[in-house]
Amino acid sequence: MDNSGTYFVAGALPEAATPTEPLPPWTSTRVVGARLPRVDAYERVSGTAVYPIDVVLPEMLYAGILRCPHPHARVRRVDLSPALALPGVRAAIGPDSPGADIPWYRAQGRAWSRLLDRHCRHQGEEVAAVAAETPYQVADALKAIAVEYEVLPFVLDEEQATAPGAPPVHEGSNRVGEPAVYERGDVAAGLAAAAVVVERTFRTACELHAPMEVHGSVVRWDGNRLTVWDTTQGVFAVQAEVARALGLPLAHVRVIGHYMGGGFGAKLEAGKYTVLAALLARATGRPVKLFLPREDTFLATGNRPANRLTVKLGAARDGTLTALEITSLGAAGAYPASAAATFMATELYACPNVRARDETVFIHAGRARPMRAPGYPQCAWALEQAMDELAGKLGMDPLALRLKNVPRTAQRRGNLPYSTAGLEECLRRGAEAFGWERARRARPGRATIRRGVGMAACFWGFSGGPPSTAIVKLFSDGSATLTMGASDIGTGTKTVMAMVAAEELAIPVERIAVEHADTGTTPYATPSGGSKTVPTDSPAVRAAAAAVRRQVLELAAAQLQRPVEELTLREGRVVTPADPSVSLPMSALEGLQRQGVLVGVGTRAPNPEGTVTIPFAAHFAEVEVNTATGEVRVLRVVAAQDSGRVLNRLTFDNQTLGGVVMGLGFALTEERVLDPATGRMVNANLHDYKLPTMLDVPVEMACVAIDRPDEAFNSTGTKGLGEPATIPTAAAVANAIFHATGVRVTDAPITPARFLAAAGGKRG
Amino acid sequence: MDNSGTYFVAGALPEAATPTEPLPPWTSTRVVGARLPRVDAYERVSGTAVYPIDVVLPEMLYAGILRCPHPHARVRRVDLSPALALPGVRAAIGPDSPGADIPWYRAQGRAWSRLLDRHCRHQGEEVAAVAAETPYQVADALKAIAVEYEVLPFVLDEEQATAPGAPPVHEGSNRVGEPAVYERGDVAAGLAAAAVVVERTFRTACELHAPMEVHGSVVRWDGNRLTVWDTTQGVFAVQAEVARALGLPLAHVRVIGHYMGGGFGAKLEAGKYTVLAALLARATGRPVKLFLPREDTFLATGNRPANRLTVKLGAARDGTLTALEITSLGAAGAYPASAAATFMATELYACPNVRARDETVFIHAGRARPMRAPGYPQCAWALEQAMDELAGKLGMDPLALRLKNVPRTAQRRGNLPYSTAGLEECLRRGAEAFGWERARRARPGRATIRRGVGMAACFWGFSGGPPSTAIVKLFSDGSATLTMGASDIGTGTKTVMAMVAAEELAIPVERIAVEHADTGTTPYATPSGGSKTVPTDSPAVRAAAAAVRRQVLELAAAQLQRPVEELTLREGRVVTPADPSVSLPMSALEGLQRQGVLVGVGTRAPNPEGTVTIPFAAHFAEVEVNTATGEVRVLRVVAAQDSGRVLNRLTFDNQTLGGVVMGLGFALTEERVLDPATGRMVNANLHDYKLPTMLDVPVEMACVAIDRPDEAFNSTGTKGLGEPATIPTAAAVANAIFHATGVRVTDAPITPARFLAAAGGKRG
Repeated sequence: MDNSGTYFVAGALPEAATPTEPLPPWTSTRVVGARLPRVDAYERVSGTAVYPIDVVLPEMLYAGILRCPHPHARVRRVDLSPALALPGVRAAIGPDSPGADIPWYRAQGRAWSRLLDRHCRHQGEEVAAVAAETPYQVADALKAIAVEYEVLPFVLDEEQATAPGAPPVHEGSNRVGEPAVYERGDVAAGLAAAAVVVERTFRTACELHAPMEVHGSVVRWDGNRLTVWDTTQGVFAVQAEVARALGLPLAHVRVIGHYMGGGFGAKLEAGKYTVLAALLARATGRPVKLFLPREDTFLATGNRPANRLTVKLGAARDGTLTALEITSLGAAGAYPASAAATFMATELYACPNVRARDETVFIHAGRARPMRAPGYPQCAWALEQAMDELAGKLGMDPLALRLKNVPRTAQRRGNLPYSTAGLEECLRRGAEAFGWERARRARPGRATIRRGVGMAACFWGFSGGPPSTAIVKLFSDGSATLTMGASDIGTGTKTVMAMVAAEELAIPVERIAVEHADTGTTPYATPSGGSKTVPTDSPAVRAAAAAVRRQVLELAAAQLQRPVEELTLREGRVVTPADPSVSLPMSALEGLQRQGVLVGVGTRAPNPEGTVTIPFAAHFAEVEVNTATGEVRVLRVVAAQDSGRVLNRLTFDNQTLGGVVMGLGFALTEERVLDPATGRMVNANLHDYKLPTMLDVPVEMACVAIDRPDEAFNSTGTKGLGEPATIPTAAAVANAIFHATGVRVTDAPITPARFLAAAGGKRG
Repeated sequence: MDNSGTYFVAGALPEAATPTEPLPPWTSTRVVGARLPRVDAYERVSGTAVYPIDVVLPEMLYAGILRCPHPHARVRRVDLSPALALPGVRAAIGPDSPGADIPWYRAQGRAWSRLLDRHCRHQGEEVAAVAAETPYQVADALKAIAVEYEVLPFVLDEEQATAPGAPPVHEGSNRVGEPAVYERGDVAAGLAAAAVVVERTFRTACELHAPMEVHGSVVRWDGNRLTVWDTTQGVFAVQAEVARALGLPLAHVRVIGHYMGGGFGAKLEAGKYTVLAALLARATGRPVKLFLPREDTFLATGNRPANRLTVKLGAARDGTLTALEITSLGAAGAYPASAAATFMATELYACPNVRARDETVFIHAGRARPMRAPGYPQCAWALEQAMDELAGKLGMDPLALRLKNVPRTAQRRGNLPYSTAGLEECLRRGAEAFGWERARRARPGRATIRRGVGMAACFWGFSGGPPSTAIVKLFSDGSATLTMGASDIGTGTKTVMAMVAAEELAIPVERIAVEHADTGTTPYATPSGGSKTVPTDSPAVRAAAAAVRRQVLELAAAQLQRPVEELTLREGRVVTPADPSVSLPMSALEGLQRQGVLVGVGTRAPNPEGTVTIPFAAHFAEVEVNTATGEVRVLRVVAAQDSGRVLNRLTFDNQTLGGVVMGLGFALTEERVLDPATGRMVNANLHDYKLPTMLDVPVEMACVAIDRPDEAFNSTGTKGLGEPATIPTAAAVANAIFHATGVRVTDAPITPARFLAAAGGKRG
């Protein structure tokens, strides 16, 4: 055919993507484990990265939400007309508008509210929304909407909620379901057998989600198809909820989450803002951007609930635990959510006799959401301070007490062995790096400024599992694209996944592009959260790359007339280790040129049965306390983490140190403050809500990575990191304060006022 | 685990995507073959569809290109500084700027020019480019650039190019390679044995590409990664060329072609504008939009070359062809391109003695590019008029002459049988639908206004083949996404591919979303062109959907405890034809819920060996000619098309009718006119270059679809349509004019002037 021009390509068909098979552990790694900067570092640092909040579409409108200012009220009347009369205002919706009655907060087989509900159960609940040409016109329009409220009585904490005659948040009791009780052995017998018993009640504060990027979406309709740019941890979760709310097929809701400015659990689900934006976009025929002001995110996007925890421990004279009892009462906010906080206590230490009870109640305040290790920092706050106290009563070193009780099995989970369990190693290597023994011996004197050291340990109860699917495409020049559904919530997911693919394909990370977090174009992934992204998705990525690798080797075997077993990949080439004369660049692979691109699909294999796989950590802190003012300075922290294989030591360290800083906020500064008189939050802004700043961060922070691949668990040998990096920090700080001062502060955060009160109580 | 919240999903792993296996033909179809509107009709009609020319990015600059006004010149000096001094101008590049020396027009092992070359070989050649804040500032800046040219002598057509002492376009001869000669049998003997011989020389005009959307790109750098929104027929082709030009890995060049406003072959490759935009974007750190004015596209984006063709036919008294000789001389323009135009003549009719010769020369004008059936309309223009003339000499009906010579094998391709060959059926059924016999008998009178009918036939020599890969994702509600690399160049590709996936998955087309034409997120496809998109890519789409279907049936078999062979899909449910009690909606498929999404990858199987598969067509036209003015009105056209299975009868008809209209332009109005004195094009605008408008379209147009699935060829039974829908139209019109008037006009387009000249010549 002499006039075929250049636009026909023909040839034989290479092997298609092959299904996943078990992959052997890497015998050595070239890329994985290195300290590599982010693959998207330039974009993030230069500002060219387009986060959802940066998305600008032609003809786009801006939108905002009017929120109830009362903790409990009924909306008697909403008049949108003054807003609609303002210049630039294009649409407004209230509780009576079409779509406002979409069921919301679905749990326990029912919906607990509506998209715009006349019954407002917390300050910040959504009442109306407007769209206008500019953000300023939106602000004016929200002020112009006339709302008449019937203000109702409220409950603000677990004690008010459970008091007789308390105003119900929903009909009936303020309990969220029945208390959850777990028991093994005989706690009474264990306590009776104990040489020493301690019992103490602790309180934690309600902490607020405060990611760098506020919550929000940009939405655009194309006919009956909706595209959503959302700052989310899970595009497929948002897709499912938005599709349900709007009655659309999943395929017609495309959720894109390229870049997102942080999420700690409150971005695991769709927000009302997304659906409100979609309704406004439909009403106006224009794209709509709706991002919340920071103040609104504090009121309405979630929080770590406040818990009251009582711990009772019994131990033999040698420190062996004989009994452990823990009860928790937590506040879910105005809608069903878990405030459970006892799980870790039932498995962290070996103990035959355990009882745990979790109870959650409604209050008239913003709803609790998962927040980095939901329940675990609260549990560590109580359990690890109680352990410290027990060590004191026993006259033991707190580290020695913990080492004495390191468990060998997952006691609550069929006594199954851990596939790898680095608790003891975290304790020993962390203590060594910290210089624990010497620091602990240096007893503080009686000066006003005193120093002390403390430690605490933890695990995080999960390490992911199916489902996850990834796709790798190898281009004809040997560069590749990794397509995955997972969001990179700022933790470096794109980077470590590119490293996994680069490792398997034996090409530089620089030759891999990552397309991710787009329900339209990427395969499925569960939301990024729960420290499960790496152990869940990296094996799927490796499997996808391995599927491409197999195709490359098979094509090369045919081309080189060599058995495929003799071939391997090295530095972008097909080589034969035994014969240096064989060296075929991937770009010279005829089958690849014929096919254009090789596609590999990888899925996450099931977790093995018969074992439990979880990450562990131990944190060590040194503090300086001004006993006159109650001010606490954290001087240094060492975090020892067992998270299986470390894919990138730089992102590993950074994530760990970020977890420590978050733990310091929990320990010392963060607290939602509700005015008992009005029920309104008094510190709903970044000035009054005290997130740790750079000035609050210890001068010395170090991370000890145990870095032992858990190869029985998955093909990358990885366990989770995000949550165990923050769980024990606060308790370690509280224990260090006790070591420095002899003052046990049971309520978080340990503000100067709380320290002084506790210190005074002790003196008195 | 009582505090796992809602964000962990676990479960067993369903079968992963499985490799393609041969798929049996569809026994019946539910969606395929229907008359369905486009899946993106709303977006296209409402204006919400974002074509590349609609893309607006934050901080985006506009850019434009300064072009050489002479057909041949050397650039002595370029002074960019006056442009850079203007307000809003952010960057300017000329022949000496970094990157301007990127090799361009690579063919025959060398580069024939540079991105910005001081030696300009045609009017419109690129000299400089600027980027500014607004398009108006761009226009001002282009005018401000000072260029000094040395104007050189030029050649404008094949005769000037081959004249002794002609100015060379490149060093040496103006021939583009050696003439291509094909021969079988003994033409001299065949002519000697003929009872009748005709010989005639024909000319065709240079036609210009004029898609609705002009050529252009929007580009954005993210670090060292480039994203290109391009109005292209092939995102992967553009990716490869841009990556090469800029020295980037393929994975770092993402080319997106969602929507594009038409392409007939000139958008099969990357334009200089894309690379110039990328250089300007890199220089400014801003996104850049560079779209060509319509006038520039006429000068510099390609054309169907002008050909001079001589045909000599010999036939026995009964019409059996005994010899066929055809020679072509075509003008490639200023850079290597094919102007070959004889292929069809060597196979359209059975003939033992054939000789064909194709020669191409350089001229000082814009380069030829593939244009809807490159070479074929020219060939049909000559061959099918010669056949008409032969029929006249034989006293045969032109239809009968063609039926006499219908071939049974592909004579040039090893005499292999056609897997399906509908030429005879196109001739017979087209004639029947047209009412050929009656219309042909109604001999025109001697009036000034005369009517006549003519016909012509064709094949198109290709029907696609590997490679192609498609991915189908089934969501947990039974809706699906099809991801494919192919562009929808306006022909309905998205729609028919969604129909193929819907057929295989037994779900409505409305529940399928299509993501396509994006090198970052879609699998590989060759460019959409050459009538090969449907037969190349639809089997891959079917295979991908079938891979999902298999997974669904296997999961259902496990869930229902039934053998998989008993199950099938119907209306979004898994059913057992034998047992109506079994009816499981896909959304109730536990394995699908566990996995989140099922992914299927499909690849195009190789074409079968031992047969040739191509589409055929026959067009019939009725015209009215004003013999006094030379004006021609086409009254009606019937197009009979054998393209295998018709996937969507509505898009099939529309594409056919569009082809007919393009053929009318070729026949009657379209022609690039170069001023012999200055060498400049005098009609480089839509006013003077006469594209057919609605007023030129026949009142009656009808399409006869043979619609016989070619199931031996591929799993959807499809052959190509785009090109055979336009190839024979012009020749049919010319033959109808001859039938009406007795005037044979050999040169296209048949303008009134040409008709009158031919008529006068005949009279004279």
